[in-house]
Amino acid sequence: MSLWDVDKIEYVGREQGPQESLAFHYYDAERVVAGKKMKDWLRFGVAWWHTFNQELVDPFGVGTAQRGYYRYSDPMDQALAKVDYAFELFTKLGVEYFCFHDRDIAPEGDTLRETNANLDKVVDRIEGHMKSTGVKLLWNTSSLFTNPRFVSGAATSPFADIFAYAGGQLKKSLEIGKRLGAENYVFWGGREGYENLWNTQMKRETDHIARFFHLCADYADEIGFDAQFLIEPKPKEPTLHQYDFDAATAIEFLRANDLTDVFKLNLEGNHANLAGHTYQHEIRVARESGFLGSLDANQGDKLIGWDMDEFPTDLYETVAVMWEVLAAGGIGPHGGLNFDAKPRRTSFYAEDLFRTHVAGMDAYAAGLLVAAKMHEDKYIENLQDERYSSYDSGIGKQIEDGTVTSLAQLEDYAIDKPQSELIEATKSDHLESVKATVNNYMVDALSE
Amino acid sequence: MSLWDVDKIEYVGREQGPQESLAFHYYDAERVVAGKKMKDWLRFGVAWWHTFNQELVDPFGVGTAQRGYYRYSDPMDQALAKVDYAFELFTKLGVEYFCFHDRDIAPEGDTLRETNANLDKVVDRIEGHMKSTGVKLLWNTSSLFTNPRFVSGAATSPFADIFAYAGGQLKKSLEIGKRLGAENYVFWGGREGYENLWNTQMKRETDHIARFFHLCADYADEIGFDAQFLIEPKPKEPTLHQYDFDAATAIEFLRANDLTDVFKLNLEGNHANLAGHTYQHEIRVARESGFLGSLDANQGDKLIGWDMDEFPTDLYETVAVMWEVLAAGGIGPHGGLNFDAKPRRTSFYAEDLFRTHVAGMDAYAAGLLVAAKMHEDKYIENLQDERYSSYDSGIGKQIEDGTVTSLAQLEDYAIDKPQSELIEATKSDHLESVKATVNNYMVDALSE
Amino acid sequence: MSLWDVDKIEYVGREQGPQESLAFHYYDAERVVAGKKMKDWLRFGVAWWHTFNQELVDPFGVGTAQRGYYRYSDPMDQALAKVDYAFELFTKLGVEYFCFHDRDIAPEGDTLRETNANLDKVVDRIEGHMKSTGVKLLWNTSSLFTNPRFVSGAATSPFADIFAYAGGQLKKSLEIGKRLGAENYVFWGGREGYENLWNTQMKRETDHIARFFHLCADYADEIGFDAQFLIEPKPKEPTLHQYDFDAATAIEFLRANDLTDVFKLNLEGNHANLAGHTYQHEIRVARESGFLGSLDANQGDKLIGWDMDEFPTDLYETVAVMWEVLAAGGIGPHGGLNFDAKPRRTSFYAEDLFRTHVAGMDAYAAGLLVAAKMHEDKYIENLQDERYSSYDSGIGKQIEDGTVTSLAQLEDYAIDKPQSELIEATKSDHLESVKATVNNYMVDALSE
Amino acid sequence: MSLWDVDKIEYVGREQGPQESLAFHYYDAERVVAGKKMKDWLRFGVAWWHTFNQELVDPFGVGTAQRGYYRYSDPMDQALAKVDYAFELFTKLGVEYFCFHDRDIAPEGDTLRETNANLDKVVDRIEGHMKSTGVKLLWNTSSLFTNPRFVSGAATSPFADIFAYAGGQLKKSLEIGKRLGAENYVFWGGREGYENLWNTQMKRETDHIARFFHLCADYADEIGFDAQFLIEPKPKEPTLHQYDFDAATAIEFLRANDLTDVFKLNLEGNHANLAGHTYQHEIRVARESGFLGSLDANQGDKLIGWDMDEFPTDLYETVAVMWEVLAAGGIGPHGGLNFDAKPRRTSFYAEDLFRTHVAGMDAYAAGLLVAAKMHEDKYIENLQDERYSSYDSGIGKQIEDGTVTSLAQLEDYAIDKPQSELIEATKSDHLESVKATVNNYMVDALSE
Repeated sequence: MSLWDVDKIEYVGREQGPQESLAFHYYDAERVVAGKKMKDWLRFGVAWWHTFNQELVDPFGVGTAQRGYYRYSDPMDQALAKVDYAFELFTKLGVEYFCFHDRDIAPEGDTLRETNANLDKVVDRIEGHMKSTGVKLLWNTSSLFTNPRFVSGAATSPFADIFAYAGGQLKKSLEIGKRLGAENYVFWGGREGYENLWNTQMKRETDHIARFFHLCADYADEIGFDAQFLIEPKPKEPTLHQYDFDAATAIEFLRANDLTDVFKLNLEGNHANLAGHTYQHEIRVARESGFLGSLDANQGDKLIGWDMDEFPTDLYETVAVMWEVLAAGGIGPHGGLNFDAKPRRTSFYAEDLFRTHVAGMDAYAAGLLVAAKMHEDKYIENLQDERYSSYDSGIGKQIEDGTVTSLAQLEDYAIDKPQSELIEATKSDHLESVKATVNNYMVDALSE
Repeated sequence: MSLWDVDKIEYVGREQGPQESLAFHYYDAERVVAGKKMKDWLRFGVAWWHTFNQELVDPFGVGTAQRGYYRYSDPMDQALAKVDYAFELFTKLGVEYFCFHDRDIAPEGDTLRETNANLDKVVDRIEGHMKSTGVKLLWNTSSLFTNPRFVSGAATSPFADIFAYAGGQLKKSLEIGKRLGAENYVFWGGREGYENLWNTQMKRETDHIARFFHLCADYADEIGFDAQFLIEPKPKEPTLHQYDFDAATAIEFLRANDLTDVFKLNLEGNHANLAGHTYQHEIRVARESGFLGSLDANQGDKLIGWDMDEFPTDLYETVAVMWEVLAAGGIGPHGGLNFDAKPRRTSFYAEDLFRTHVAGMDAYAAGLLVAAKMHEDKYIENLQDERYSSYDSGIGKQIEDGTVTSLAQLEDYAIDKPQSELIEATKSDHLESVKATVNNYMVDALSE
Repeated sequence: MSLWDVDKIEYVGREQGPQESLAFHYYDAERVVAGKKMKDWLRFGVAWWHTFNQELVDPFGVGTAQRGYYRYSDPMDQALAKVDYAFELFTKLGVEYFCFHDRDIAPEGDTLRETNANLDKVVDRIEGHMKSTGVKLLWNTSSLFTNPRFVSGAATSPFADIFAYAGGQLKKSLEIGKRLGAENYVFWGGREGYENLWNTQMKRETDHIARFFHLCADYADEIGFDAQFLIEPKPKEPTLHQYDFDAATAIEFLRANDLTDVFKLNLEGNHANLAGHTYQHEIRVARESGFLGSLDANQGDKLIGWDMDEFPTDLYETVAVMWEVLAAGGIGPHGGLNFDAKPRRTSFYAEDLFRTHVAGMDAYAAGLLVAAKMHEDKYIENLQDERYSSYDSGIGKQIEDGTVTSLAQLEDYAIDKPQSELIEATKSDHLESVKATVNNYMVDALSE
Repeated sequence: MSLWDVDKIEYVGREQGPQESLAFHYYDAERVVAGKKMKDWLRFGVAWWHTFNQELVDPFGVGTAQRGYYRYSDPMDQALAKVDYAFELFTKLGVEYFCFHDRDIAPEGDTLRETNANLDKVVDRIEGHMKSTGVKLLWNTSSLFTNPRFVSGAATSPFADIFAYAGGQLKKSLEIGKRLGAENYVFWGGREGYENLWNTQMKRETDHIARFFHLCADYADEIGFDAQFLIEPKPKEPTLHQYDFDAATAIEFLRANDLTDVFKLNLEGNHANLAGHTYQHEIRVARESGFLGSLDANQGDKLIGWDMDEFPTDLYETVAVMWEVLAAGGIGPHGGLNFDAKPRRTSFYAEDLFRTHVAGMDAYAAGLLVAAKMHEDKYIENLQDERYSSYDSGIGKQIEDGTVTSLAQLEDYAIDKPQSELIEATKSDHLESVKATVNNYMVDALSE
């Protein structure tokens, strides 16, 4: 079944039974949930690199993907055919956003000038489709990691010509972002890290990239490109260590380099796992620090040590993510859920591009429904308020409002309290009941 | 709330809403599912060590548990009070089985003779309660890992006196198993492994433990104790490496040492994860090799590297486990689901002993309901049959039935097939749709 | 062999052959290396908790340690005997520093007042020994994680009474630090984290602990205690997640809460590994950001997922650590190498307390010798200078000195450079030769 | 520097100082160590795929390698040029063995017949070089994992045509092995595993591959190809799970399928780590079970979760490996050390092919020297003999020789032993002293 033979994906609900066909069971774009349409909570985006450029290789095997545009042997012909293919997919899926790297959409020439010329032609075609379909650009970005020149980094390369080249490349990428109305602009520093500390001047490298980011921000100002800048943390792979290890590390870098006003974070579930965290953890860290920007919708396998970029289907994770999003009132100022996910190598038909996105969209729609029901009942809010209630009065309130100004006051308060009284002050968390309740909410919200 | 103040846990279904109270939402013991009562599919057991002996310590903190029998300072008084407490819990939970190590139920004396005398007194009390309540012994076992004498192993200790002591200890433990009618007898070799290979003669140690197992099997025969013997794999912790790393390793050991007729496996979810496997994987390996014996019901956190022994609440895991059990027609010949799980240190009330078991029992009951619905629809069976259908006729059938006897026949068949035909023969697995379908089955089966 | 039968450990060099006896092969305290005595580069400290309080338990086994002071059944008698034992060990080892938690040295009473009275008695004894032996306090700290009252945290406990108690406890601990002339004061927040995000208000908890740290700093000022405050990062265990995950995360917290002037970091090799980092990485991060405070000398097993706290013997790690220390000119302003390490459960004699410390001290002394030889040859410095030399002139220099102020300048520089020229600018790192050279330095430096 | 400009690598010893040039510091091919020449203990082999076919890609970047034969655009021209290049490298390195997959040496045609014709031409060229240089084939193998047709497995593919094709492919590969005098024949089942258990019939798949192995063994007999067959375990990557997870799992499979007479194992360090084991562990398991066949010389990074295939430089690992090899009297019946290792993407020059192999060869030569010195002193042997000495007489001897035939005898022996006596029987392992001694042996053996 070719892409062109697939019908627009429709919402059918749960009537057709559990076995999946090409239809949404939970995602009903216009349905209002927690005061907004589902599509406005979720703002799904398709990722150009995985969906159109990924040939489904792995380190031990060549590509298996079957795509219509492979019939074109000229790279520019293929690039342009891919644009038509992409917008056909977007509209059939009912996805209103997309994302790309500069190098996804057009082939490189021998010089940056030639490469930019290629880009312009493809951007023309994209712009036309955007106008005719209404599909928007969630964010664009620049690949500073694929080409051999970036083997030792781009803005953190030990080689100044490479830094310079990266700067020139970024200039064009920001201009394209402005032209296409990108709502965000993302930096993923896949090569901005190290292979080995013996040959690395870490501080010098991070000083360089901070300088690079300031130059980028200045240029965006200069051309009036007001997209939200985003850093995407990932701990390792392709490099042994990447400087944007996780949310906290990226925020530390922003604070140390006077970049907190310029950047927020684009977080990803699989990257969170590789750093030893849950996805919810990374979102919580960013949300509570004011750095939640946008989200990459994918999942990893926690028993696997590399980036799988699987389409998300784990409802525990989508419920947790959407609960954080509801608590934040939305995914950052202009964020969305970009499917940074690929079919596995064993799902190689064009049809699988639909099957995978449908599975992912349904999983996040289900997550929204469950989280919204928990939110409506204030289940988590009440649980937490009760748990921390000792800070709402007495010594707790005095600690929070600054009335306690010396350890001596605390010593006075505590010095003669017997152990039994302190144990009494400490409550069980009954956490297994909380987990069972989340299970129950899943069933209740999704069977309504 | 003391244990004695808790009422018998009842099945209330989904009527009381999602928030958990002390009641079953899915576990309805007498309900018939897939041809058997839920309780007969699940055969839940309470683990004495975690539920009654675990003071809720961790390596950085002392015990937090609050238990009624801590009022007794004499170890034997406490041990006997614990028996009453245990059977009160079993009956209130409606659990029909329990499990214990010899050292869980009675304090050690200075010699094995004194220890055995202590054991006899407690076993008397247990036997009385078993008769009056009908609660049965799923399995017993012997602790060959807690006491300092076992610091370097028991049957694999480099010190022959320790092997001898372990043998004496086992003799008594088998006698107790027979007396109490244990349906299985388990060996978990927590210290049967190594800290370092430089000082270890691995083969000599595994030869010793094979000898030990044969002696145990002979003694069970001698006294007419016909319980199923079980090995419980675990890869590491407490030792750096344990000889029963995972199911495949344990089976290899049984094959190499002429023990396949004597032993099956007792598998555990958290142990599976520590070996890099899913729980379903370990069960599948054992089931398809004929070594599925019994199951420990718990769960780990795949981002955590030690044994958490959490109560199971992850429905993806319970669905997968129960699907394997349905495929096997039951949990081994005499197996059950033993809760090798402890409340976390932050759930320290007696009430939490109920909350945690209720959460675990409901999670497995839900898993059974979902798996049974998938089974009823033959969803997985049909998916697999279709996928492997090329082996039902033609060259596939000839391969399976032995008609193909030489590579030359295969070469003849394949040598002129073009690549396109071979690719055509290879089908996409549409795996994301499979995962979405499992999600749908969860909602459908649990909301019925 | 009792502690009292061991002779003072002497430096014997390599003359007695490779097989270890109770003697130093590399650690020659007064030998001058890279301009300072070995003992002044290394500043070894013994950790009270592991060396004297650790009974060598693990989650599956009771204590195996054999220690002379176990003969005392009264806790205060035992605590005082332990002081004598400790200083005997310090002087025989030739270690000039030690470290302790408040709860290591004296038993708790029912109230803080009673506990403090116990502390005072033991501190008297310690002070006497310090005067007579010249052994100094590298740092002290407070255990806010062992007692059940801290089960859900201390300064981040959801229960205000516990925060108050922790504050009172800290007051006393700071006073003891001042009295004994501690050079640093450490905070390890073992319970300052979360078990589950559903019931956790993360930002509220980190606000609380920031408040707590300010109160502690103010009180230290008030009493004129001028030790360097240190945070010790660790990612997980005992809690599922700890707020001081790693160096970068801890620094982010300090920046966000106006605590950068007050705190530096105390880093540990095993904790680094549990966060997915090498020890060298954590030290590099802290060193280059100006937060290197002190070091815990231990090692983990990178294939193991829990905190092993093994004595350090891996020369690759000690060479890397000491190279960073040489680059920093020392271990922080007042730091040292505290052996946060325990004999494994299978090394239970008093004699093993010597064997383990000797192995650790020799491993770090060897690390110093190798790193000093590399440093003397400027091997790494030259390698790095050569690698980054393109930033010393031309466009590289302009990037670093701020002459480049716009992406347009970089575009101008790069836009017509052909790919071949960019590839030419990118040099191979020949990293395997670097690793082989480090091997060679190990042999050369240690066989001199 | 092109490959052709490099001089033959010579042994220079330690005279030129620690900094690496293109020379051996430890590998002196003809030097006799422990009764054999170094080259005969080590039997180094170069791996065609990594050394000549690896373009130094990773999942996020295209190839960086610079190789002379890239000038040929026709695949057959390139393949033939590569043969000349390969033998030039072998002879300059002084390596006497090499290894290849069928698909490494010649391009595929559209059909197996066409592919085989390509193979024949390249094999002619290889055979000529083998004769003129004396370089031998350690082993060959067949790639049943790269081509899209194998996406779901080869002998375990759910699609019978793929099994048939794999069989035909193997026939040719065995014929080539015979023609070139391969000493071993390896099977690495990269795709022989599963992505997901829901759609997998595991037992059916392993039955298929067992059948496949029997067909291969029969065909080797038929054509008189007497190479040792080897299975190479790896736990995961490219598939989620591979059936040959580790040594124990592979041996279990061989025992279950009557293949123990046909196969031994080819083990690899990085694969061992991915399965949670040390390399020494895997070799020990295979050695003591009689399945040690051959070794892949590489190393991983234990903090990284994917297959790095780094050149080996860690002396701790090479010492441990070579100690096991000395204990076995050699690397299996016909085994060697095949460098299944690639330069990292940042080492892209032809010169780096020498630098990396030199580093690896020196690391293993050093490992041999250290292990031989330990062996000569019987250091480990004595340590172990002493540790297990209680089995040399008394009850221990009776246990080992079968005199103990019942648990009752052991009970008699142990029942009245007091705890103190049992503790006395248990000795400390003083393991840190053992580790320090290994450090000392490293320095002593390498500085001689």
